[in-house]
Formats: sequence, structure tokens, C-alpha cells
Amino acid sequence: MLPSEVSVSLIKAKRRSGLSFAELSAQIGQAEVWVASLFYGQATAELQQAEKLLDVLQIVGTERAEILEVLTTYPIKGALDPGIPTDPFLYRFYEILQVYGLPLKAVIQEKFGDGIMSAIDFSLTVDKEEDPKGDRVLITMNGKFLPYRKW
Amino acid sequence: MLPSEVSVSLIKAKRRSGLSFAELSAQIGQAEVWVASLFYGQATAELQQAEKLLDVLQIVGTERAEILEVLTTYPIKGALDPGIPTDPFLYRFYEILQVYGLPLKAVIQEKFGDGIMSAIDFSLTVDKEEDPKGDRVLITMNGKFLPYRKW
Amino acid sequence: MLPSEVSVSLIKAKRRSGLSFAELSAQIGQAEVWVASLFYGQATAELQQAEKLLDVLQIVGTERAEILEVLTTYPIKGALDPGIPTDPFLYRFYEILQVYGLPLKAVIQEKFGDGIMSAIDFSLTVDKEEDPKGDRVLITMNGKFLPYRKW
Amino acid sequence: MLPSEVSVSLIKAKRRSGLSFAELSAQIGQAEVWVASLFYGQATAELQQAEKLLDVLQIVGTERAEILEVLTTYPIKGALDPGIPTDPFLYRFYEILQVYGLPLKAVIQEKFGDGIMSAIDFSLTVDKEEDPKGDRVLITMNGKFLPYRKW
Amino acid sequence: MLPSEVSVSLIKAKRRSGLSFAELSAQIGQAEVWVASLFYGQATAELQQAEKLLDVLQIVGTERAEILEVLTTYPIKGALDPGIPTDPFLYRFYEILQVYGLPLKAVIQEKFGDGIMSAIDFSLTVDKEEDPKGDRVLITMNGKFLPYRKW
Amino acid sequence: MLPSEVSVSLIKAKRRSGLSFAELSAQIGQAEVWVASLFYGQATAELQQAEKLLDVLQIVGTERAEILEVLTTYPIKGALDPGIPTDPFLYRFYEILQVYGLPLKAVIQEKFGDGIMSAIDFSLTVDKEEDPKGDRVLITMNGKFLPYRKW
Amino acid sequence: MLPSEVSVSLIKAKRRSGLSFAELSAQIGQAEVWVASLFYGQATAELQQAEKLLDVLQIVGTERAEILEVLTTYPIKGALDPGIPTDPFLYRFYEILQVYGLPLKAVIQEKFGDGIMSAIDFSLTVDKEEDPKGDRVLITMNGKFLPYRKW
Amino acid sequence: MLPSEVSVSLIKAKRRSGLSFAELSAQIGQAEVWVASLFYGQATAELQQAEKLLDVLQIVGTERAEILEVLTTYPIKGALDPGIPTDPFLYRFYEILQVYGLPLKAVIQEKFGDGIMSAIDFSLTVDKEEDPKGDRVLITMNGKFLPYRKW
Amino acid sequence: MLPSEVSVSLIKAKRRSGLSFAELSAQIGQAEVWVASLFYGQATAELQQAEKLLDVLQIVGTERAEILEVLTTYPIKGALDPGIPTDPFLYRFYEILQVYGLPLKAVIQEKFGDGIMSAIDFSLTVDKEEDPKGDRVLITMNGKFLPYRKW
Amino acid sequence: MLPSEVSVSLIKAKRRSGLSFAELSAQIGQAEVWVASLFYGQATAELQQAEKLLDVLQIVGTERAEILEVLTTYPIKGALDPGIPTDPFLYRFYEILQVYGLPLKAVIQEKFGDGIMSAIDFSLTVDKEEDPKGDRVLITMNGKFLPYRKW
Repeated sequence: MLPSEVSVSLIKAKRRSGLSFAELSAQIGQAEVWVASLFYGQATAELQQAEKLLDVLQIVGTERAEILEVLTTYPIKGALDPGIPTDPFLYRFYEILQVYGLPLKAVIQEKFGDGIMSAIDFSLTVDKEEDPKGDRVLITMNGKFLPYRKW
Repeated sequence: MLPSEVSVSLIKAKRRSGLSFAELSAQIGQAEVWVASLFYGQATAELQQAEKLLDVLQIVGTERAEILEVLTTYPIKGALDPGIPTDPFLYRFYEILQVYGLPLKAVIQEKFGDGIMSAIDFSLTVDKEEDPKGDRVLITMNGKFLPYRKW
Repeated sequence: MLPSEVSVSLIKAKRRSGLSFAELSAQIGQAEVWVASLFYGQATAELQQAEKLLDVLQIVGTERAEILEVLTTYPIKGALDPGIPTDPFLYRFYEILQVYGLPLKAVIQEKFGDGIMSAIDFSLTVDKEEDPKGDRVLITMNGKFLPYRKW
Repeated sequence: MLPSEVSVSLIKAKRRSGLSFAELSAQIGQAEVWVASLFYGQATAELQQAEKLLDVLQIVGTERAEILEVLTTYPIKGALDPGIPTDPFLYRFYEILQVYGLPLKAVIQEKFGDGIMSAIDFSLTVDKEEDPKGDRVLITMNGKFLPYRKW
Repeated sequence: MLPSEVSVSLIKAKRRSGLSFAELSAQIGQAEVWVASLFYGQATAELQQAEKLLDVLQIVGTERAEILEVLTTYPIKGALDPGIPTDPFLYRFYEILQVYGLPLKAVIQEKFGDGIMSAIDFSLTVDKEEDPKGDRVLITMNGKFLPYRKW
Repeated sequence: MLPSEVSVSLIKAKRRSGLSFAELSAQIGQAEVWVASLFYGQATAELQQAEKLLDVLQIVGTERAEILEVLTTYPIKGALDPGIPTDPFLYRFYEILQVYGLPLKAVIQEKFGDGIMSAIDFSLTVDKEEDPKGDRVLITMNGKFLPYRKW
Repeated sequence: MLPSEVSVSLIKAKRRSGLSFAELSAQIGQAEVWVASLFYGQATAELQQAEKLLDVLQIVGTERAEILEVLTTYPIKGALDPGIPTDPFLYRFYEILQVYGLPLKAVIQEKFGDGIMSAIDFSLTVDKEEDPKGDRVLITMNGKFLPYRKW
Repeated sequence: MLPSEVSVSLIKAKRRSGLSFAELSAQIGQAEVWVASLFYGQATAELQQAEKLLDVLQIVGTERAEILEVLTTYPIKGALDPGIPTDPFLYRFYEILQVYGLPLKAVIQEKFGDGIMSAIDFSLTVDKEEDPKGDRVLITMNGKFLPYRKW
Repeated sequence: MLPSEVSVSLIKAKRRSGLSFAELSAQIGQAEVWVASLFYGQATAELQQAEKLLDVLQIVGTERAEILEVLTTYPIKGALDPGIPTDPFLYRFYEILQVYGLPLKAVIQEKFGDGIMSAIDFSLTVDKEEDPKGDRVLITMNGKFLPYRKW
Repeated sequence: MLPSEVSVSLIKAKRRSGLSFAELSAQIGQAEVWVASLFYGQATAELQQAEKLLDVLQIVGTERAEILEVLTTYPIKGALDPGIPTDPFLYRFYEILQVYGLPLKAVIQEKFGDGIMSAIDFSLTVDKEEDPKGDRVLITMNGKFLPYRKW
């Protein structure tokens, strides 16, 4: 699935602006990954936030109205084709699921009981840990535990 | 794909022992999730660690020799059927990839350049954040950033 | 995916007992569909409930210990092969998703905002509406609405 | 599969009009979910109903004739790509089928005999149950039971 | 998907008996194709009919009890692997769907309105038309038309 | 797979003309379902028949030449995406294959020997059987039996 | 899909006998490839032929009765898993279809009209052409042309 | 996968010219099926051959330059979607692979040893065998045998 | 997946220029395969390198700016459709994985321990070995070994 | 696809023997990777080589006869499930195909013309390059170039 036209316009405008997601985050008042998820049609902005983003990215004219409407509409989420992603960066997360999915389930359900980690009441943070042998990526997932309801 | 016979034996022995992964972790000297990944055929133990684990789980006799051999052999990894997992706990990680995969790629490559987060030089930690509105699961992924080589 | 041996044993014992799910529900103190979901490895029982169920179904001996362990363990859920079910009864639910999935999303998100109906904090009730032109099945789904978290 | 151009036009006109599906339902004289299913090419309107809808949404000119023809034609139904949906809202219904499909079959066939719940002679209602711990979505499915014919 | 053990037993017993489906049909009081569908786990017999069938096929002992239980239980239907069948006989029906599916939809919906031909309130007859240039197979499908409900 | 532009033009012209497939059938001198299969790119017309059809549907100008060429060319057949159709009308034929495919094979091969019913030397007729409890669709398939050649 | 037990038994017996398919062909009075297709459950033998084959292969006892029954029963054909074969020998035929399928269709339909080459009224011969630069395989397919019926 | 624009142009020009593949073959000095494979982007022509073909088909102007470039470039081969073809003509070759693939492998490897028939050093011929009971298609495949290298 | 417009433009310009990848490699100061990977959107160039490449290929005007932006952006990698490639050249690498994947794993892990060969810190060289019996392709893969981290 | 029983026996015997593939290679007189491919059912040994291997691995008794037969039979090759492998080691080769497949095709066909690198007349060598920053894996593929035949 190719990025939508709106995604492409936002990415180009961001490149022109020279701003990073961290800088946009500071302007919009939401976290870096959340702002990036807005770029890829995976989140909904308040009208005011969307206006602010388009101001910062200097998107004007008829394109602005179009993008504003998209950013404030609840999207059909899921940005990838169904199945297994072929991009190596994205694939590694599928690999982590294949290799560590059952161990994570065993450890988390031992700590919390029968249920899941929510991917909705959920946030994601990225940090960089400098290391002379090669910098490290730190990703923190923070999701509400949802126990299965018995009825 | 069903858990292998060795996985089933280890899980049953752990249940009989009443020990948690945290307790096994303390005994084996490796992290909780790593120990669980050993249970599901996703990691290789040193002979000594494998012996220790089988002692703690009180696995003896011919079954012990069989399991010892498996635990110290480099496995064919990937514990799930290819494609999209149907268990709701596991599925949420696929959903995170669908929804936040491209945003993560954009943010991480902005910080680190063209490359990937390794899933091999990689570790995984699980924490519980108590919260009156519902406890939260914290998962920390720590992977070396691997830049693409130009040649 | 064939029903597990434990499922088959429970179904046979229920048939021998002549009891309906409604009658088992009254004995176990949980709803009809929940009890059935226990039969198919989709829910976890308290030890006491599991004992009660096995008493009522008159399951004894070594089989009892085995089933007791399964019923009180957090299962790997999802009872069907991945993809599209071929049984006509099950398929109709896939068809409802194909035909009414987007309309439901539009109506529910209009009423509740951007988010999902939980399938975890969730219950399911079945009723029979007698009708001379053909009885009708009433299924009520009751799931907590989970709004997307912004961070 | 992307929504068709007709769907996109209807959704945009509805947004401009500021009307909810509940308000359109009152105007058209059909239920909320049914009206939404018309928006997504999953139902056929009487000419008069289609005219009414286009009046209310103030759709005029050549676009009106085009949409009128589509709304009154029997569509090829099924709005999603074959397989498993990647949008989290839609996926939850697939998950309900995976987890509760066999239990539902067992309970419904126990009450009604060998057969299926029709997805054709079928209706769907959505309600909102306010709850201080989080509002709840109530979905009621009402389908005729169709027993298998023996011949 | 291999035929179940019960199917294999019934097919072997029929072969031993030398009886055709037409002869079994006369004995059981149901049509030929319906009797064959019972052999492949696609229909449910009344206890009396099942007993009669097993008498005629001279199936006795513990195997009889097992088969009796299966024949009188509502089965999980759909005898083929999901997807496209590889047997040439079976494939031709998939080919007919590929080539004549949309034409049939156009002709039938023109005659009946928006709806479907039921595959539940449905019967199937096979006849042989002798022809010097090669005998012909006549298959008659007879299904109730189900119009879409508007609500 | 969307209907081709030629199919869409033919369907629109037919709608404008107000003619049914039965009426077109009378004009063209071929059966109703065959004429519909021509609309969907699944059959080849003689030049004269194609001319006649375009006269009746009042298709003129450059579009006429284009459609004429398509109607008289041997098409790449198979109008649906590979796999399982999502439209409920079409799906029922897949369901019939899943449920009654093996029984049909058993009954037909018992009557005719090892071989198949041709889908090439084949015709298809649709009839309407009026019934106060709901009209019934009658579909008759008539295919030459092709025995396997031994060599 | 693994070869069936019957296939494995026949292959082992043939190996023990030291006979080639060409020699079996002479004994059975059918062509080499046809005899091989019988080994893989893709053809049906007359009782006499099956007896002859089992005599030649010196298969006796209970195994003989079992194999005799299988060889004289109309099989469910198609010996490979659905999809694309992974064995390099078999794959080349899939590759020929990918590369030369449409050219073959164009050339054959130009010569014969709209229709297909039958794979039922069909035979297959293999020859070896010796060549100092490397021997060549000659495969001849001989299938009846089946023109599409117009009705 | 639809035929490319270049394929469509060539096919239209061939139709206008009234020439058969056999006639083009005589002009180009290559076999009929090879010429057809050039039409579908499955072979590479020498510049001179491509020029000759375009002369014969009277393709001129900017389109000529475009097509000339494509015909003389090494293509990405494989003209069909991955998986199983839905066109009945093409499908029969897949069916032959399913039914006769393993028998062919057994017979050919018995004659030649462990290896494959090349689909690269390979040619394909089509002949028509007239027969009062229905003409027959003869397809001859001629491929170099490639034995597995041992190293 | 078709090559992107940028890939097509680069390939056409290279053809016009008459330069080989080896000659471009000398100009750009990167290896032949790496330069080719840039053409197919699988690598990121430094601005200076991209400028140099466009100079050499004489790409100017608005197209130049567009391509410059693409060449210096981190791409979504993976140039083929998910699954099994249908082009025979590409397929052979899939075949090597099917046939020699497990043997390679066994030999490499025996030499290096549990881990993988990196496809990121990785380079690829192609050589031609002239041979009177047919020239040979030599491909050398050089990837860093990444041992699994234990934590 | 699980390794066959023969593979498992050979791997266990090798482990017991303490011999590496390099040592077995010296004994058998074939290269390391070829010997490993024999272990996984991907190559055929001469009887003498197979005897030698079983002597070295000290495999005796009825198991020996069984394995001897398998090792000297032409196998159905392809050791992995169709599709994309989930083991991280194996997956990297699929990733190399996704990322570098088209660049390799462009470079090799530029050097050699339209054709493929054979995977049959092919060998594979593994070397270890010691490097203080992490050892490197060198894989050399050596395959005959096969030009497309024109006919």
C-alpha cells in the first residue's frame, strides 16, 4: 500500500521546512511518534492542532482545506498491506513478534492475569542511547492491561 | 503451530514447581523474557544454564537428556505460523506494526539515519505500572541500530 | 484447526449428561456463551468453577486432572484457522463484517469518537425470538468503548 | 479496497451538511446502520429514498444523476479486501469470530437445531450505554434462523 | 483436508455392501446427494435414519456407536481446504463461479430483486442425460430466494 | 477485480434501454445467461451478434468500435479475483462447493465413472419457481461428461 | 502434501523389483507416464490391471488388499499442495505457465477458436533426445480441443 | 495482471494487419510461440527483428520508438499474477502440473538422473491434429536436461 | 509491483547514455551492485553522489529535482511483491533459499554460533568467470555475523 | 515443514560423533555445504558415499537401511514451507532477494545477456573472515549462466 497523497504532501512539506518530528512535537504539543502517526493517517487531530501543523508546515490554498479535512477525520487505520511487510525496518517488528511473542505473553500474563496489553489506550516513545560500539534504539510501549471480562 | 513437546514439558514442570519466570530468572542469571524465550524454543542455553534450569524444574530421567539436547541446540526460530496471529494478545503486536510501523520508521530513521533496529543484538524488558484506573504494561525494546553499509 | 482433545472430551461428556449450556450456566454461575467459550479453549475458569463443571459432567480419573489444568490455564486463543471460515454458520459472521463493517464503524465512531469496541471487556448474549414466519436469533454484543489515547 | 468515489462524495456531503446518521435515518425512514450501509455501497435504495437522501445532502447536477443510479442498483457487496482487515475497529469483529465463533455456533444450534443465522434477512442496531467507568457499545444482531433443508 | 475417519469407514462399508447412493437413498428415504452429503460430514441425520443407514451398511460394534454419534451431531461444515480445490472434478465448480458467477448474479437479481439464492434452504439433484456424442450431467440447484431485509 | 470499462458501458446502456436479459436473449438468439456472460467478458460473439446487440442497446460512435472489438475477441476469462468471493450472492456458490462438492463427486462418478463434468461444453439455465413461502431459484447446469483417457 | 502410504509402498516395491516404469508399462499395457500417475494416486486402474501390477511388484498379504482397493477407486486428484510447488523440477512447469501461458493461449486459440485443450481427454509422453551438448527432454502433450459451447 | 500497454498495442496492430502468428513467424524467422512470447513481454528481440516486426505490423511514430525499446530490453518475465490462474485455458496447465507433475518427475528422473528439464534452454511447439471426434492439440516441450552438480 | 517512475526514468536515461553499471560505479565511487540498488529505490545516496549521477545521466529540469529528492530520502525498501517472485531470474534465488537455506544455516551456525548473517552490514559482488562450457556467474555475499544477545 | 525423521537421525548422529561438516566433508570427498544439503534431503549420494557417511556417523541396524535408501533416492526438494520463512537466519536471504534481487538482475544481465544463473549447475561455499569489529560471513555462489534459447 503506497502512502496516501495527503501523507506524501505532509512529508514533502516537512522536508521543505527542515523541521524534525521532535520540533513539530514541541509546536503541536503532542509526542513525536504521535505526530508521525498523524502524517501516516493513523491518528485524528483536533481542528486547532491540525491548523497549527499546517501553519508550521506552510501548507496553504486548496490543498490545505483538503488536508485539514483528512487530519480531523477518523481514519481507516492500518498503513501496511495485510500480511508480512517486506521493508527490512518494518520486518524486524514482525520478527520480534515471531520470536518473542509467546515469551512476552507468558511473562505478561503471569504478572497480570488473562488479558491483553491495549494497543488503543497505548503510547510509544523512542530514545537514542549513545554507545561507542554502536548507538542503541530504545522503544518503550506503554499500554493499559485489559483483563478478560467474565460474564 | 502448536508448542513443541519440549515446550509443553517445560511449561508443565514450571507449573508444578510453582515458580515464576522472575524466580527462574534469578536462578539462571538471565532476564525474565529471555528465560521464557528458552521455554518456547527461541534461544540457546549454555549447558550449565540448561542443567541448572532442569534441576530447578526437577526434570529427570530420559526426558531430561532429550530436553537438555534441545535447549543447547541452535533452534529454527519463529514460534508462530506464518502470517497474522489469531490470538488476541499476540495480534495486538501485529496491530502496533500496522498502525505505528511507518511512524516509528520515520522517527527512528530521522534520529539515526538509514538503517534498522536489530532484532538480534536486542533485549526486551517487561514492567508493571500500577494505576488505579487499570494497571499498565511497560515493554522496553533495546536494539542496536544497524546503519546500511555502502560499498 | 480441529477442536482440541479437551474440547472433544467436554463436548462428549456434555452430550452424555444431557445438559444444555443454559443448565450448565445455572450450575457454574456464568453466562451460557461464556461457558461454551470455556469448552472451546477460549476462556479461563477459576479452579472452583472448573471443579464444579467437571463434577456436573462427571469427568473423573486422570482425564479430570488433565482437563482441570487446561481449563485453569490462560489459553492461546483463536479457535479457527487464520483466514476465512468455511463452515456456513461461522462464515455469516465474516459476511456481516464484509457488508456491515464500515457502516458500523461510521455509526459507532459518530456516536463515540475515534476508538474501538473492546473485544476483551466484552460480553455476548444469545436469545430466541419466536416468530411464525421463522424464529429469529438475537445476538447482543456489549463491549466497552476504548477511545484512542493521544500522547 | 478504497471506498468508491460515490461513497467518498456521500461522506463529504454528509460532513458539509452537519447531519448525523441518526438525523438522516429520521429523514429517510430507515434505520441508522442501514443508511450507513447505503453510503458504503452495501444496500439498494428505492428511487424515492435515494432522491430524498440527495435532497437532504444537497447533492445536485451531474454528480446527482451518477449517484442516484448507483444507489438504486443492486451492488456487488463486500466492502473490504478479502482476508483479515487491518483497521483495529474492524479487526475486533474478526477477533470475536475467532474467539466466540464456535461457542456461538454451539449455543445457537443447541437452541435452534442445525442451521444458520441469516445475514440477509437480518438487521443491526447500535446503542450507547453510558457508564462512569467508560461508555459501552451495544450491538444487536437480529437474523432469521434458517434450518438446513433435508431432501 | 483428508476425509474424516468416519467418512472413510462409511465409504468402505458402502463399497463392501455393493450398494449405490441411489439404493441407499431408497432405503433411507432421502435424496441421493443428501445421503452422500451425510457420508462427508455435511448433514445431520435423525437417530432413526442413522440407525437404518448403519444397519444397511452392516456397521456394528464400537465403531457403530462412534459413527452414530457423529451422524446425529450438527457438524462443522465445509469439507475442503479453504481456497481453490486442486481436484479437477471439484475445480470445475470453482471455474463455473469464476466464469458464470457475475452473469448468474445479473440474471437472477433481474428476475428476483436484490438478494441471494439460499444455500441452506436448498437441494441438489443429479441426472444423467444419455447422448451418443457423450453423456451429459444435469445438475439442478433449487434454493429459496432470500431478499435483503430493509430496516 | 472491477468490471471492465466495456462491461460498465454495456450495463449502463442496458439500463437506459430498459431491456431485460430475457428480451436481449430473444433479439440475439442466444440464452439469457449466455448473453449476460457476454456482458462480463466471459464469452465471444459472432460479429453479427455483436452488431445486433450494439444496435439494440443503441451504442454508437467510437465507443461502438471499441466494444465491437472486445466482444468478438477471445477473452481472458475468470471475472473474479482469485480466491474466495466476498459478495454474498457469489459466495453461496463457493459454499455449495465446500459443502456439496465431495457428495456431488461421489454421486456423479458413481453414475458416470472417473471423469468430470465439462465447464466448457456446458450451459446454464435459470428459472423462477413461484412459491407462497418464498419464490425459489432453479439453476440447471448441463455439462458433457468427460471420462479420463487411459493411454 | 506428502505422498500417501500407498504411493510410498508402491515406490518401495518398484525399487526392490528393480523394474523401470517402461518395463511396468510393457507388463500393464498402458503408457509409462500413466503407470506413474497410478503410483501417485492420479488414475484409476481396472481390477485386472491392478492385480497384474501387484503381482509384478510382488506385493502380497493384507497390504495387497488395501492397495488394490485404492488403485481401483476414483481418487481425489491433485497431488501437490495448492499454490506454487517448491521442488525445482516441478516448479519449472509452473514457470513455463507463467512465461509461455499467454503465448500458448494466443497461438492455440488462433488455430482452434475460443476453447481449451482438455486435461482429461489427454495423454503425455516423455522421450529422451541424446545430444553431446547435454541430453534433452521431450514432453508431448496431446489433448482434445474443447470449443466453448454457445447456447 | 493486465497485459502491458505494449502488449495491447501489438495485439491490436496484429488484428488490424490480419496476419497470423504463423505468418509473422515466417517474416521474423523465429517460431510461432516464440513470436507470441515477444508479444507478451516474455522474450527479447534483436533490434533488426524488432524493426522487422514493427514494419510488418505497420507501427509508426512515437509509439514505434517506445515499443522498439521494450522489445529489445531484457524483460521482467512472468506474465500472470502469482498463484493459480483463473482463466480456464491457462488453468488446465496448472491442473496438468497438479495431476501429472509427480509422475513426470518420476519418469524423467528415472531416465535422466537427479536434475530438471530446463525452462530456459527450452522451446515449445504447437500442432493441430485433425480428428473427426474433435481436433487435438499437440504441444511439444523440448528442454535441456540439467543434472544437479555435486561439489 | 512495478518499478517506480523514478526507477523507470533512471533506467531510460542510463540506456540513452550507453553507460554500464560498471562505468557508473567508477564515476560515483560506489560498487556496481550498490549503484544498481540505488536505481531500484533500495539505497540512499549522499546529495553529492546523487548530483553526480544525474549529471552523468544528463537528467535535468523539474524531473531532476524530483529524482534528487527521492535518491536522498531513506526509502521503504523491498522492491518485489510479497511472496514468491514469478520472474525466472529472481525465482532462482528463492529456490536457493528453499534448497540450500537449512544447509547454509547448519554450516554457518556451526562455524559462528547462534546468530545470523546481517543483510544490512552487507555487500554483494558479481563476477563473470569465462568457461568454454558456458560462462559462470560468481556472486559473493559479505555480511557481518550477528550473534544473538543474551540478557 | 519439520525436518524429516531421516534428517533428525542424521543430525543427532552427527552431534553424538562430535564431527563438524568440515570433517565430514573431508571424509566424504564433497564440499561442506553439499554434505549439509544431504542431511536435509536436498541432494542424492552415490551408494558408496552414503555408506561411508553412515559408517562415520556409526548408524547401524534397520535405521541404516532406511536412511541408505533415502540418501540414494532422488528427493522432492525444497525444505521449507512455501512462502516467507519465519526463522531470522533464513529470512535474511529472502530479504536479500527483496532488496537486491532487481539490482542483481540488472547487473548480471548487463554482463551476460538475457538469461539466468542456474541453481542446478551451481555450488555454494561458506567462509569466515575474522574481523575485530565482528567476524564476517562470506558466501560464494557459483552458477552457470543459462542464456534464453531463441527458436
